[in-house]
Amino acid sequence: MTTTHRIQFLPHNREIEVKDGENLIRAAMEAGVHINASCGGEGVCGKCRVIVEAGEVTGGISEKLSAADQEKGYRLACRSLVHGDLTIRVPVESTIDASVLNQQTVPRRTARIQQKDLNDLKEAGLFLPPVEKIYLTLPEPDNQDHLPDVTRLVSHLKLHHNEHRLTVSLPVIRKLPDVLRKDGFKVTATLARPVMESGKTEIVNVQPGDTSERNYAIAMDIGTTTIYGQLIDLKSGEVLAEHGDFNGQISYGEDVISRIVYAEKEGGLERLHQVVTETINTIIKKIVRRAKVDAEDIAAITLAGNTTMTQLLLKVNPRYIRRSPYVPASTLYPPIRAVDIGLAVDDYVTALVYPAVSSYVGGDIVAGVMGAGLYLDEQLTLFMDIGTNAEIVIGNRDWLACAACSAGPAFEGGGIKHGMRAAKGAIEDFSLDPVTWEPMLMTIGNVRPKGICGSGLIIMTAVMFEMGLINNLGKFNRDLPTPRLREDNGVWEYVLAWDDETQIDNDIALTEIDIENLIRAKGAIYSGCMTLLTEVGMGMQDLDRIVLAGGFGSYVDLEKAMTIGLLPEIDPEKVTFIGNSSLMGAKMSSLTNRIRRDVVEVTRNMTNFELSETPSYMDNYVAALFLPHTDLNHFPRLKTRLADRKKNGEASPGA
Amino acid sequence: MTTTHRIQFLPHNREIEVKDGENLIRAAMEAGVHINASCGGEGVCGKCRVIVEAGEVTGGISEKLSAADQEKGYRLACRSLVHGDLTIRVPVESTIDASVLNQQTVPRRTARIQQKDLNDLKEAGLFLPPVEKIYLTLPEPDNQDHLPDVTRLVSHLKLHHNEHRLTVSLPVIRKLPDVLRKDGFKVTATLARPVMESGKTEIVNVQPGDTSERNYAIAMDIGTTTIYGQLIDLKSGEVLAEHGDFNGQISYGEDVISRIVYAEKEGGLERLHQVVTETINTIIKKIVRRAKVDAEDIAAITLAGNTTMTQLLLKVNPRYIRRSPYVPASTLYPPIRAVDIGLAVDDYVTALVYPAVSSYVGGDIVAGVMGAGLYLDEQLTLFMDIGTNAEIVIGNRDWLACAACSAGPAFEGGGIKHGMRAAKGAIEDFSLDPVTWEPMLMTIGNVRPKGICGSGLIIMTAVMFEMGLINNLGKFNRDLPTPRLREDNGVWEYVLAWDDETQIDNDIALTEIDIENLIRAKGAIYSGCMTLLTEVGMGMQDLDRIVLAGGFGSYVDLEKAMTIGLLPEIDPEKVTFIGNSSLMGAKMSSLTNRIRRDVVEVTRNMTNFELSETPSYMDNYVAALFLPHTDLNHFPRLKTRLADRKKNGEASPGA
Repeated sequence: MTTTHRIQFLPHNREIEVKDGENLIRAAMEAGVHINASCGGEGVCGKCRVIVEAGEVTGGISEKLSAADQEKGYRLACRSLVHGDLTIRVPVESTIDASVLNQQTVPRRTARIQQKDLNDLKEAGLFLPPVEKIYLTLPEPDNQDHLPDVTRLVSHLKLHHNEHRLTVSLPVIRKLPDVLRKDGFKVTATLARPVMESGKTEIVNVQPGDTSERNYAIAMDIGTTTIYGQLIDLKSGEVLAEHGDFNGQISYGEDVISRIVYAEKEGGLERLHQVVTETINTIIKKIVRRAKVDAEDIAAITLAGNTTMTQLLLKVNPRYIRRSPYVPASTLYPPIRAVDIGLAVDDYVTALVYPAVSSYVGGDIVAGVMGAGLYLDEQLTLFMDIGTNAEIVIGNRDWLACAACSAGPAFEGGGIKHGMRAAKGAIEDFSLDPVTWEPMLMTIGNVRPKGICGSGLIIMTAVMFEMGLINNLGKFNRDLPTPRLREDNGVWEYVLAWDDETQIDNDIALTEIDIENLIRAKGAIYSGCMTLLTEVGMGMQDLDRIVLAGGFGSYVDLEKAMTIGLLPEIDPEKVTFIGNSSLMGAKMSSLTNRIRRDVVEVTRNMTNFELSETPSYMDNYVAALFLPHTDLNHFPRLKTRLADRKKNGEASPGA
Repeated sequence: MTTTHRIQFLPHNREIEVKDGENLIRAAMEAGVHINASCGGEGVCGKCRVIVEAGEVTGGISEKLSAADQEKGYRLACRSLVHGDLTIRVPVESTIDASVLNQQTVPRRTARIQQKDLNDLKEAGLFLPPVEKIYLTLPEPDNQDHLPDVTRLVSHLKLHHNEHRLTVSLPVIRKLPDVLRKDGFKVTATLARPVMESGKTEIVNVQPGDTSERNYAIAMDIGTTTIYGQLIDLKSGEVLAEHGDFNGQISYGEDVISRIVYAEKEGGLERLHQVVTETINTIIKKIVRRAKVDAEDIAAITLAGNTTMTQLLLKVNPRYIRRSPYVPASTLYPPIRAVDIGLAVDDYVTALVYPAVSSYVGGDIVAGVMGAGLYLDEQLTLFMDIGTNAEIVIGNRDWLACAACSAGPAFEGGGIKHGMRAAKGAIEDFSLDPVTWEPMLMTIGNVRPKGICGSGLIIMTAVMFEMGLINNLGKFNRDLPTPRLREDNGVWEYVLAWDDETQIDNDIALTEIDIENLIRAKGAIYSGCMTLLTEVGMGMQDLDRIVLAGGFGSYVDLEKAMTIGLLPEIDPEKVTFIGNSSLMGAKMSSLTNRIRRDVVEVTRNMTNFELSETPSYMDNYVAALFLPHTDLNHFPRLKTRLADRKKNGEASPGA
């Protein structure tokens, strides 16, 4: 006999029955209750805090929990075993909030937003969707005309539409005879164009009557954390609907490494594949419903994701991505029947998967390069996508170099005592009274603070540095007369909000360790850029523009990012934000076949630098571990500002 | 509550339980007991005779059963309903005997056998199997070499094996990382060559270590009645094993029309598709076991069948093949993933399906034309495949014309009172004593006679005609003094064997109706040839050679076939027998990619004549409804022989 226990999860109010001895985080997964666990359940990140409100668990205690928290009933879910009925409350900081994903991103205090325009494509004659529908009225067979159905269709397309090198798929052959006879040999043929001019055009679908006005595609960005989809009208080029959701894999580890670890377990790859396709299919369903189109008129799907996400989606074990010498299974993928990878679309739909450059510069980055048009541009451009990892691409139409920087998760709130993602309650803006050293905080959604998001962290650090609250090593000026500066367990910190002002019933503070982590992160990125440029004999001064991609790019305060030395100093007018560049690239591929043709060549010609094996990198990195840099001459505008503050007797570093 | 009944089938000794009111022939099908039913269970062919040994059925009586037979317990299974427990004996004439299929065919009294020789191909440099295995030792990745696994494989093939335009399938990408690391980056890659030179070579499989010596293909002939498969060693070109079996669809109708009728029923197409793949998979299993090879080393499969068999195999409804204007869904099929059509081979195996010309000149005939090399030959050749339908092709390397003749099933024993297939007990040779008019019979397997097969029918008719037992209209000389000539129910017949000499406890006789059916059948074929030739401005005298295909071709007595006017008179040395030409063509395609390339062009250039719509056909047909023909001058050698017989006072027509 097996003993089972009931667990109730609050505030979701979900119940589940589990076997005696089950791990609490697994029970939550099974119940569909998300609990943050960035370490994939290994017990090292301390993020899966839950409150046991009724019943008792075995284990769950860890040095990650203070004695006070333990007293309040806090346990780590991944360390707790179930031996009786339970009521578990998942505290707000352990959950994720999807609502923020679908709010319009309004970049702040920033320069231009660049979105490659549909009209640009149309003007350049490049509005060439990979899938086209043509309405045909075929002659009917009779005693003088015994052409087979397929030949009838193909010859008509040749003769009257100048279509050559046509192939027909088996599913079309299967349905063609009845489709032809349903509406007097009037049919609409769906033609999929070849990527290469030498290729063949495939007739992938036929429908009775005239359906040529109904031709749609889907573009998807498969992020480690979030997945976004767009439904695109291939007649007009317009986006009819868009939706984002958290990647269901998030419950199996927050970053790519913990996903890979999970994928290596028995059945793990299959599970992660299944979970991500479920998320994708949910999004497809939503955007199809929202756009009020018929799912059978969706004729193409383009997917862009990092190398690990791509391999998990295609059920290619990413095992060797995390092992030296870090080789991916493949960087190029053939066109794939979408149903073969579990996507809920018609069986004739081909999924196009963006190629990658290396294990850590993936299809999402390539999509960004294609979407932003870097590879067509004369200007020397620095492209950055800052997330858990930071990927950088530098180059123009003549050459492209790229690298992935192990920036660590600081920009997404990881490794920061009160760090969190850019969601409701995250402190995203900050200013400081130079007399009282009291802060002014703004949070996303204007609610009581829950924590600090990446963009907030940058602003705080920049403001504190420029006003002399911290020095160029990121250490607090301990002499300042404010109770907010304190030492806690040997670590100095600045209290941003007292417990009674927060959502988490705890003080929210910024620590020297947080600042150190940020400096390491920004140093990794800046030195990555420096390394790419020095390897090709150039410097920061040669950059014509910067393109910032990703959610982080949209929220970051440009001037502050330059103040801490994350970005090189450049005229803000020369910085553009392109938002979700991966989704943008996937969309562009749906609008013009030219990108699908060019991308193979572009990917092949992108030089990937493994920074850890590039000798100049370590020197550049060590020099970047200061605010903003060892050599202040890299940042002439900041240098002038700091000198002015000093001259004017304003608070300033070292003043 | 449902009442059920038990049925025991003899001599199989199979039992089955069925619901009250079940049809007896369906019960037999379900029990896996084959009963001939050429009409597909419509009750019109009268072939599904069974003996009710115990119990009672409802119905089952028909004018197809004599009163004496009914007395003995004979019933038509398709007309019998089950309302109680039964013991049913399936008489020998209602069963089929698969053992004959796998006996070596020894053509009789005939000219050369032509089998395109493997050595011919090798000498001509055309031994180019479509799938090749290459063993590779790849460099291992290290800190200076981060090539993705796929790129590593592809670059090595380019650099060291001059392989270009390579693509890699998703299943290969999925397995490659682990396969590479299983044996120190030593792997065998399986390369599938493109049909067209402009196409790409696809890497379809990778295996650890050196497996390059183990590379096999399967060739299959999908006949309406029988299916044959060969397992071919692609290293040597040798056939390692061969096996034939009855097409499992036979229980759903003996000819293509009744199969189409069945396919149009609810679920019928799926059922017929499933049944034929079961037969194919059983054959694959047998030949794999017999050749002692590993199934995962089978890299290609080629299939040839008539248009209906092909559509049923590919699950393409053949509905419009039997409806005017008789158009097939397609004549060309793309390469198909074998597992997608239910074949039990590895999922990377591509099935190549022979293209057809029209609804009634199918891939089996095209395979014959390719296998026999007609399209390469300067000589004007007549190619005939005589079965339920007769297909003829005339032409050479400059032009090819073809037609299907509705010969009827006489050559396979259909429409003949005691007709049967060429199986054990079939009378296949015959001579006549000119004084006593007593016959001498030879049967296949030298057992007591069961019936008359097609080749026997031709011999009898030729002998009887040449000796004057029948005249040139096929009517018996009723004055001859022999008890074997008699009138039965108004139909004159010649008794070949008395009931106590046979296996069927009945006299076996040849009737005037049988002869009339034969004359119609041979007339249809001869006039088909005449029509094709006259349409291109030629005559029988222009033929350089005749190629006979099929089982019938192997058994037929050449001289006798010319005597009755089935074949044009030609030097027997110029007639070749090629046996199962469909299988031969399928095999040839496995040995040389050249055929797969040429076949598309050949098929496109074959002119198909719909005889019923060709004005000259009816005149030719009417003129051919004599023995051998209205115009004896078409058969000069026979004319001389008959004149000699007359001169010598020997028995002769009209003598």
